Amino acid sequence: MSSKYLSEFDLIEWIRQKPQNFPDSILKSIGDDCAVFDPQSIARIAVTTDSLLENVHFNKHWISAYWLGRKSLVVNLSDLAAMGAKPYACLLNLELPHDLDSYYPHTFLKGFLEETAHWKIPLLGGNLSSNEKVHTSITAWGSFQKNQHPVYRSGGQEHDILILIGDVGFSRLGLEILKKENPNQLCEITDEDSLAKWSGDNFRFRCLKAHLLPFPLIAVGMWLCENNLANSMIDISDGLAADLLHLANESQLEAEIRIDSLSLPEHAIGKISPLEAALNGGEDYSLLLSTSEKQLQQLITTYPSDFPPYQIIGNLSFGKPAVYLTQKEERRAYEPKGFDHFK
Amino acid sequence: MSSKYLSEFDLIEWIRQKPQNFPDSILKSIGDDCAVFDPQSIARIAVTTDSLLENVHFNKHWISAYWLGRKSLVVNLSDLAAMGAKPYACLLNLELPHDLDSYYPHTFLKGFLEETAHWKIPLLGGNLSSNEKVHTSITAWGSFQKNQHPVYRSGGQEHDILILIGDVGFSRLGLEILKKENPNQLCEITDEDSLAKWSGDNFRFRCLKAHLLPFPLIAVGMWLCENNLANSMIDISDGLAADLLHLANESQLEAEIRIDSLSLPEHAIGKISPLEAALNGGEDYSLLLSTSEKQLQQLITTYPSDFPPYQIIGNLSFGKPAVYLTQKEERRAYEPKGFDHFK
Repeated sequence: MSSKYLSEFDLIEWIRQKPQNFPDSILKSIGDDCAVFDPQSIARIAVTTDSLLENVHFNKHWISAYWLGRKSLVVNLSDLAAMGAKPYACLLNLELPHDLDSYYPHTFLKGFLEETAHWKIPLLGGNLSSNEKVHTSITAWGSFQKNQHPVYRSGGQEHDILILIGDVGFSRLGLEILKKENPNQLCEITDEDSLAKWSGDNFRFRCLKAHLLPFPLIAVGMWLCENNLANSMIDISDGLAADLLHLANESQLEAEIRIDSLSLPEHAIGKISPLEAALNGGEDYSLLLSTSEKQLQQLITTYPSDFPPYQIIGNLSFGKPAVYLTQKEERRAYEPKGFDHFK
Repeated sequence: MSSKYLSEFDLIEWIRQKPQNFPDSILKSIGDDCAVFDPQSIARIAVTTDSLLENVHFNKHWISAYWLGRKSLVVNLSDLAAMGAKPYACLLNLELPHDLDSYYPHTFLKGFLEETAHWKIPLLGGNLSSNEKVHTSITAWGSFQKNQHPVYRSGGQEHDILILIGDVGFSRLGLEILKKENPNQLCEITDEDSLAKWSGDNFRFRCLKAHLLPFPLIAVGMWLCENNLANSMIDISDGLAADLLHLANESQLEAEIRIDSLSLPEHAIGKISPLEAALNGGEDYSLLLSTSEKQLQQLITTYPSDFPPYQIIGNLSFGKPAVYLTQKEERRAYEPKGFDHFK
């Protein structure tokens, strides 16, 4: 790109020239009215869509365009992970202010395309528009082979054990750091070392990294699915309590979290306690699943050492769909306060 | 919905309770991390995504929520039509101001779901967020059976004849009426009779209808594809000239439009001439295709009487990809001025 400002068609051409590895089943990608693929080698296809909006989901001064590009894909990959799907392909809707320097979309796309390359999920097409705010909306597909079955939220069974893989709470605390400090230097940061240095200590770094660049648990989800080790599963995007309620509702079961079993962040940030962040924070992109006793035993004995640690945090049981919290013999019904966009 | 204002989860539940006809191949729809389908009965899948943004693509005072819901899907259906695909399923990203009266999303969704039902393209899931402006982003799939081949932009052949099916120019003139008159009563109109009455005469009605509620040429696209009657095809969303240049670029051929053969709107609106509206207007959602002489003969003899009239408007020939306009023996190279979002 030579010009300072954007041209829609130049940007599409620029994306198109980037080398991407397409599986043979992709018949047409960028440059037509639709992308086309041959699904005959795929037994089942999972599809998801998720958006990130400036000033709703992110602040342009707190995250670099490069990391925003990566995170835009990650939040969709996390939905695929929660089904156990293997990433297959994606579409990108990108909207940008028309007076934005062309550096912004190019570094956004650099991050986005590096993330697609890493997860082998080629970009097949999409849409560019002007908008007053930066706005991304991605559709992603994942595939299953013949002997694999997607892990639904609705698959939970009575007496299932609830397992959490990945952290909860750190992302919300990272957001709180950003809200309190309003640091506009972070939009320059594109690597973890610089973020670690800026953070000052390990705890702050862990919180900020969890918020700015979450890691999608694709490998974990695929492993659980391939080995039939989860009856039900969901990713934590609205908050542990709200997402567990989704799972309980879909499975038509009662759910209990034993708070004392839950590994929490070490410190509060401002008025946000570790427990509040874990239960109601959201944007963790960890996996919450339910297993039978037998599945749990197999999980424990075969769990890969390079996966994030799992925690046994509660169970499902017969009863009206609801979430209960137990702490030191006290049991209380929980009214989830997860994020509702219209409240 | 009892409350005046919105709840994200109530709205999702409301959508979920609406009866939809799912083909057997849809295994999971709304209510999980992803939707899932079994593609084994489908030979090829076409996918597309398109967005409508308040104050970029539409003005909330000029179009009812009900028609916006319908049009949001139509612009995606038109992309499927341009490949010859049969509508299969869709996802909806809907963003709304959080203080919007709940009447708005409910009438939007009424329109959207009536349109999905009409075209048998069930809504499998999506996403609801708050946003300062109304914003829709839809992903749609279409299917092809084994003996059917998607019609690409790149399939144009030397000596192909260019055919236009549907009107061009009216939509841009409709937009000009809206810009000149800024009529805030139109947001109440949800049926064609009321629009006709408001319009005052047939010409204005035709322009406004073309802009506010375009009709996707799904049946035409499918018929052309099934009968192998088009070598290349594109839908007119950026303007006839700009879209023909896309087709010429992808087919690596020169294209010529004979202006005298082009059926144009009868009148100008303000400073927008019929020719300007036809060449550079956009949002027509007509189909532009190229055929061999033999395909054209078959098209002429078998063309269904209930399809919109076709026009023979020019041809493709060997040469550097470009668009030429011929009018009364004069031939000039055309620099397309179709809509670029960032200009």
